[in-house]
Amino acid sequence: MGKACFLIQTEDRKGILAEISGFFAGHSFNVLQSKQYSDMRENRYYMRVEVDLDNVALTHRALTGEFDEIAKRMNLKYSVHFSEDRARVALLVSRASHCLYDLLAHVREGDLDCEIPLIISNHPDLEHVADMFNIPFFCCPAEPGKNAAQEKVVLELLERHKIDLVVLARYMRILSENFIDHYPNRIINIHHAFLPAFQGGNPYLRAWQRGVKMIGATAHYATPELDEGPIIEQDVERITHEDSPDDLKQIGKDIERRVLTRAVRAHLEHRVIIAGRRTIVFAR
Amino acid sequence: MGKACFLIQTEDRKGILAEISGFFAGHSFNVLQSKQYSDMRENRYYMRVEVDLDNVALTHRALTGEFDEIAKRMNLKYSVHFSEDRARVALLVSRASHCLYDLLAHVREGDLDCEIPLIISNHPDLEHVADMFNIPFFCCPAEPGKNAAQEKVVLELLERHKIDLVVLARYMRILSENFIDHYPNRIINIHHAFLPAFQGGNPYLRAWQRGVKMIGATAHYATPELDEGPIIEQDVERITHEDSPDDLKQIGKDIERRVLTRAVRAHLEHRVIIAGRRTIVFAR
Amino acid sequence: MGKACFLIQTEDRKGILAEISGFFAGHSFNVLQSKQYSDMRENRYYMRVEVDLDNVALTHRALTGEFDEIAKRMNLKYSVHFSEDRARVALLVSRASHCLYDLLAHVREGDLDCEIPLIISNHPDLEHVADMFNIPFFCCPAEPGKNAAQEKVVLELLERHKIDLVVLARYMRILSENFIDHYPNRIINIHHAFLPAFQGGNPYLRAWQRGVKMIGATAHYATPELDEGPIIEQDVERITHEDSPDDLKQIGKDIERRVLTRAVRAHLEHRVIIAGRRTIVFAR
Amino acid sequence: MGKACFLIQTEDRKGILAEISGFFAGHSFNVLQSKQYSDMRENRYYMRVEVDLDNVALTHRALTGEFDEIAKRMNLKYSVHFSEDRARVALLVSRASHCLYDLLAHVREGDLDCEIPLIISNHPDLEHVADMFNIPFFCCPAEPGKNAAQEKVVLELLERHKIDLVVLARYMRILSENFIDHYPNRIINIHHAFLPAFQGGNPYLRAWQRGVKMIGATAHYATPELDEGPIIEQDVERITHEDSPDDLKQIGKDIERRVLTRAVRAHLEHRVIIAGRRTIVFAR
Repeated sequence: MGKACFLIQTEDRKGILAEISGFFAGHSFNVLQSKQYSDMRENRYYMRVEVDLDNVALTHRALTGEFDEIAKRMNLKYSVHFSEDRARVALLVSRASHCLYDLLAHVREGDLDCEIPLIISNHPDLEHVADMFNIPFFCCPAEPGKNAAQEKVVLELLERHKIDLVVLARYMRILSENFIDHYPNRIINIHHAFLPAFQGGNPYLRAWQRGVKMIGATAHYATPELDEGPIIEQDVERITHEDSPDDLKQIGKDIERRVLTRAVRAHLEHRVIIAGRRTIVFAR
Repeated sequence: MGKACFLIQTEDRKGILAEISGFFAGHSFNVLQSKQYSDMRENRYYMRVEVDLDNVALTHRALTGEFDEIAKRMNLKYSVHFSEDRARVALLVSRASHCLYDLLAHVREGDLDCEIPLIISNHPDLEHVADMFNIPFFCCPAEPGKNAAQEKVVLELLERHKIDLVVLARYMRILSENFIDHYPNRIINIHHAFLPAFQGGNPYLRAWQRGVKMIGATAHYATPELDEGPIIEQDVERITHEDSPDDLKQIGKDIERRVLTRAVRAHLEHRVIIAGRRTIVFAR
Repeated sequence: MGKACFLIQTEDRKGILAEISGFFAGHSFNVLQSKQYSDMRENRYYMRVEVDLDNVALTHRALTGEFDEIAKRMNLKYSVHFSEDRARVALLVSRASHCLYDLLAHVREGDLDCEIPLIISNHPDLEHVADMFNIPFFCCPAEPGKNAAQEKVVLELLERHKIDLVVLARYMRILSENFIDHYPNRIINIHHAFLPAFQGGNPYLRAWQRGVKMIGATAHYATPELDEGPIIEQDVERITHEDSPDDLKQIGKDIERRVLTRAVRAHLEHRVIIAGRRTIVFAR
Repeated sequence: MGKACFLIQTEDRKGILAEISGFFAGHSFNVLQSKQYSDMRENRYYMRVEVDLDNVALTHRALTGEFDEIAKRMNLKYSVHFSEDRARVALLVSRASHCLYDLLAHVREGDLDCEIPLIISNHPDLEHVADMFNIPFFCCPAEPGKNAAQEKVVLELLERHKIDLVVLARYMRILSENFIDHYPNRIINIHHAFLPAFQGGNPYLRAWQRGVKMIGATAHYATPELDEGPIIEQDVERITHEDSPDDLKQIGKDIERRVLTRAVRAHLEHRVIIAGRRTIVFAR
């Protein structure tokens, strides 16, 4: 029967932990992991509970139904995720293949638990990579002034394939607010800089010009404000004056791929709760 | 009235979290932070609970008494720490001053919450540092073949000053099992290598000879087996072929100071539980 | 015409830099990069010089011939590498695919400049990966007691394909001294621990048992002494008490892949000189 | 007689290395270390040469004179530094002591080679630290609207004490262009953020609000444009959602102290050349 994972948030107050953990104890659940966090500045309470469903008499529907009651009573905002339901992830790419290879290799190796029903690109270049991994590839080229039409095609593809999560693996298009509204908190982007430094284009060249001593990458949820969405994961690497802008690009590729893969993993493992502009990312 | 911090461990089983958090909810405590960890390999449960004592009617004694009952019933092994009781820490040094300066500066800046009633050394060299910080300094020289006698003097000093924690801040003596038994799990040592690599003497020279590309330092509780005690904190820094053994020593000093200070801080903040050869170090 | 790269070592003494750089200046070479290192402990001098061959009248043979003379006169030990000559690299694997995917993706992306004429394994499992990348795959199973025979087959394959560099990308066999002698300083291995800690088998389980707070991986040249060869690259990642041995394995895979890829890149870019048990790794 | 260190820059062209190293070889100097870097984007050549002065017949003046000639002929911009001449460093502070302690401890331990003739502050708070280390302390309070008068007092102190380098160790004043012009490329500031992110005030609070997953610090030369000067050193540390703005401040203090100390060390060891908005920082 696998596992169920609850992501919960509510107003912080006394006794929440006792009440919620009491619920699971009362049903004789084996709690595999429970993590909580009280944000005292914002007076919010966040919680992740993972329970074992083996040898549990309740159906998913019954479990959800019962938790719904306590959630209403306690005014909890929550989502529940069953390990049986594998997320369906669409990868959107342009011409750069490094993040794509890394994500697909991790899926193959069993280190990213999801389905990849399709890969979408605005360029035909990476079709061969999709072919290698036997994943349907859709090229949706973007013509000047026809942004809305192109997005419509992409959205239809996503919908038709029942996509749960959209990963922008170096997809070099700016998404419209309309597009983002279709997948709120379900679009992950990789920005090739240590945000909020070097928002916008050409970050490696600008990093070189500014003479920084470390470069980084940032994975974040996409929001209508470009490069301003809640950050899931960041990492950096030390550089020196000897590294040219091209070297930074190459070093950056290795940072980007690991940052994006980690962020997608955190999302797929239901370890992320969005809290305004911030994210709560529970450790594994 | 400050805060109380409970460090708890017991056999892992269903319902522990609900029962313990129920205790604190039942007494209307404001739980500031609660963290748990189930080690499924060893079937052990570890927990840290921090509660606010302001506006709480219970005395320390009454609180401890009540928790004692639940602890007996649930077979919990635990310790409780009140923020009022500042730990009394003895620093043992030899000739190297870098860790000593860093610890004392952090105490002065308010970033290590403890008293330093005395500094003990087997050499007179660092008396001037103790003087700068107005801390009594005791020189207990070690003569060949008179190890036991020297340790006896040190132990008497520690006892007379009611020491809670002994920090070996580059104290270049091997402690006897007898000495260590007086302060079980209450002696923190800094080893100038990334354990278990380079146990024993001269680690930087050996690291150079082996040609490693990173060097590190390790803070651990002292046990009778040299350099084998439970590790609290480690860190490393990248080096290159250009760094001589002397460079490694200098780079290493900066790693040692931050690793030891972090480990002492984790201990003083009651974030460490010893579990056999391993430590549970709860994040801040 | 591309570039030529000289890797030089000799006894350290006055005037070497002037004499060698004088040679290149005398022939009006454009020196793209020159790096030197004097190991004062061992009294050895190491140098890497990269020169532009565009608009240079000398043939490769003539250039080598002329440098040979100065090398004899100055008693230099050296090798020269022309950018035209792409290294031919054999990948040896067993069942784990993570390093294999990362190396092949980097080759495809143009970030590892080499040919991969074949992949060899003692297991059939990864043939599909070789197929994806259109690389011939040879399965050379190892039967108990027939180690020498299996190695003979592998060596013949390597010879037939004119292999310059052998990369053990999680090849779970211990190579004989005879095998290693066929490719001195030309076999790179990835060890899944931060050497010299946890030499030998099962390093992640042993790291968990020891309770270390960081785990790492080490890429090194293979020598007859297991896990004792000169280290090219190492890296680590922070772990916590919550990470199980399986988590360490998964975290470790990401360290292994980046460490091995970096080491192979350094070798292919002619940035590594072996100096006894140590390596000189010139920065890019 | 110690050592001499030359920092050189010029237009990049063929034969520079041969000519300059030929100069030192011609005078039979023992070159301890020589590092070069060609910035091909800007067509500039940068070099650091360290020579042994023991057993050398030339006086400092004669050496400088001779090098002056080759510098004129080759159009080199250079500075020369003799190890005999210890730099005189002024520390400017406000109320935070962490960088001050770290710098002074490193000087005491022999890991920063300089004199500290005085400490200047706009507040009286840290006089006791200066006293501990027996360093004259000058309090130059800043009254509203009397910025120029205060700076004049500070400048006179610096001049009277023949200061070579000014270190702003969390000096919470914005310096005027006039002040900076008195010490071009000789004022090092620590900014408590990973520049160019979070320029200006309150960076830790803003980092918390933005939800970044790493925080950092930046040491740079002060220029009239606030937080825009050439960066010498940066470092970061990973944080989590659990870290409050106050935690970030505390974590940040440890990053700031090590970043500033490393930057000052690089400057004092004559390893930094300023190249427009960038710095060339030669490795040790």
